[in-house]
Amino acid sequence: MPGLESLLTSALDGDRRALAKLLTVIERGDQDSKQVLATMYGRGGGAHVIGITGPPGAGKSTLVDRLVGEIRATGDEVAALLVDPSSPFSGGAILGDRIRMQDRVSDAGVYARSMASRGQLGGMSRAAPKAVVVLDAVGFPYVILETVGVGQAEVDIVESAHTTVVVLNPGWGDSIQAAKAGLLEIGDIFVVNKADRDGLEASVADLKHMLAEGADREWSPPVVATIATEGNGLSELWAAIGAHRDHVRGQDDGSAHLHARREIRAAAAEIMTLEAQARISQEDLDGMVEEVVTRRIDPWSAAERLLGAG
Amino acid sequence: MPGLESLLTSALDGDRRALAKLLTVIERGDQDSKQVLATMYGRGGGAHVIGITGPPGAGKSTLVDRLVGEIRATGDEVAALLVDPSSPFSGGAILGDRIRMQDRVSDAGVYARSMASRGQLGGMSRAAPKAVVVLDAVGFPYVILETVGVGQAEVDIVESAHTTVVVLNPGWGDSIQAAKAGLLEIGDIFVVNKADRDGLEASVADLKHMLAEGADREWSPPVVATIATEGNGLSELWAAIGAHRDHVRGQDDGSAHLHARREIRAAAAEIMTLEAQARISQEDLDGMVEEVVTRRIDPWSAAERLLGAG
Repeated sequence: MPGLESLLTSALDGDRRALAKLLTVIERGDQDSKQVLATMYGRGGGAHVIGITGPPGAGKSTLVDRLVGEIRATGDEVAALLVDPSSPFSGGAILGDRIRMQDRVSDAGVYARSMASRGQLGGMSRAAPKAVVVLDAVGFPYVILETVGVGQAEVDIVESAHTTVVVLNPGWGDSIQAAKAGLLEIGDIFVVNKADRDGLEASVADLKHMLAEGADREWSPPVVATIATEGNGLSELWAAIGAHRDHVRGQDDGSAHLHARREIRAAAAEIMTLEAQARISQEDLDGMVEEVVTRRIDPWSAAERLLGAG
Repeated sequence: MPGLESLLTSALDGDRRALAKLLTVIERGDQDSKQVLATMYGRGGGAHVIGITGPPGAGKSTLVDRLVGEIRATGDEVAALLVDPSSPFSGGAILGDRIRMQDRVSDAGVYARSMASRGQLGGMSRAAPKAVVVLDAVGFPYVILETVGVGQAEVDIVESAHTTVVVLNPGWGDSIQAAKAGLLEIGDIFVVNKADRDGLEASVADLKHMLAEGADREWSPPVVATIATEGNGLSELWAAIGAHRDHVRGQDDGSAHLHARREIRAAAAEIMTLEAQARISQEDLDGMVEEVVTRRIDPWSAAERLLGAG
């Protein structure tokens, strides 16, 4: 891509339009994106990444908006990335929901962007961790990563954050529901948002009880009550994030190695998937689909034959 | 594996212990599992697969339990598969929740099993669709597939069902939340469970309104109100599933081709991921992790070098 070098230079100089273009390159995931990552990765490592997850409807968007305000009040800049199950159906809804965040666009210290959770070739997009690399490199001290869904893939994404915040509600269901969704063990901080609703104390107590059962680690996840729409509890949440940040930075680098290993493995899987797609011709695939539909072969044997691996 | 042939024969003869062993083979995903699938796939195609998803706490487990009762009342057999974010933390919770279903174990016409959503090597397990192949082959006319999370990966799993049921609650948040989670476009039937709670009518109206916006298909998804704990609305749900089943069977086989194509692609990605793991030595990986942690190379370039693909 002509001009990629100058885009990189401009983005590193703080040009937000250049940054937006780089993130689009990252989403496309082609050869250019490799060059972007190769350049940016060496310049990063300074950002603290905050992952925010929780069931739909828990109030994550409002919480992220207020958290951005909290961070901006300290004078620091912040980027917010929404990982979004991009669908024609949901596009409008999310856009509407993002308007609040867009009001902050006039504040040059905030950068907000949503990214598709589904890759162009189907399956999960691995674009979010790559976008974090770019936002880190251009100098944001804080990057917030918000996921819309709560599934295994989303949990994997927020697990890559330095501090993972799980957002629940009073009366949303008891902590067993959080356990079932695999949310209890990934949270470094738990937020019970909409704290003005019935059942706050029971939810907090229940959550603390469940967390105590899994308490075999150096960090005891705090439970913070918030009313994000009114800004209540946000300074407590920000303080908890700061405390966890200090805790993480004080640790040895075992988690950095684990994270690097995970990223290399994920990248290898991604490369191999592209290789598979390149190896299989459309014509061969069409023929095999016919065999599978008529049950003369199973899909797994079909894939082996197509790849020449059987 | 010695005795695999006789396990297959016994399972096809209706032996439930043999079936359980075969599903364990499938979960392991080794060479034996390929043989199981190759044998079973050709014998399947008769089952109607019902996917059940929705946010944690919506009451899916109870609903599935009651739906099993509804199906059993017709005399038909049914298998229920729970796709479970297997974690040490959540294991106990889920087990507790499953006890109700286990009560049905004395009923030989019901087979219930939970499967890990995370593969042994990390990432998503693709075991659920394979387990469906086996349950189909041994003759269950209905297979229910329930996911605990609502994320992209879980949505992918339930999309493979013939009939997808999305379970929500009144006051859970409006339909915008469902849209954000990508649930609106995958549902063939919507259930508003816990219909005795406040906000039922508003939730149903809101949902119908959102669904009408996306109404460009031959099937208009009905919205069914249930109180699963009391069995209310279950016969309506069962009737809606029957209507959708008739609708699907009356269609041309376009969806079968789409499904086969998706399964072949997923199988190819799985094979290639295993190939990547085989290609990379632990020693080389350890060395590269060190380079990535010190930011001398980015994870994506590191993976390319390890695979010899760069």
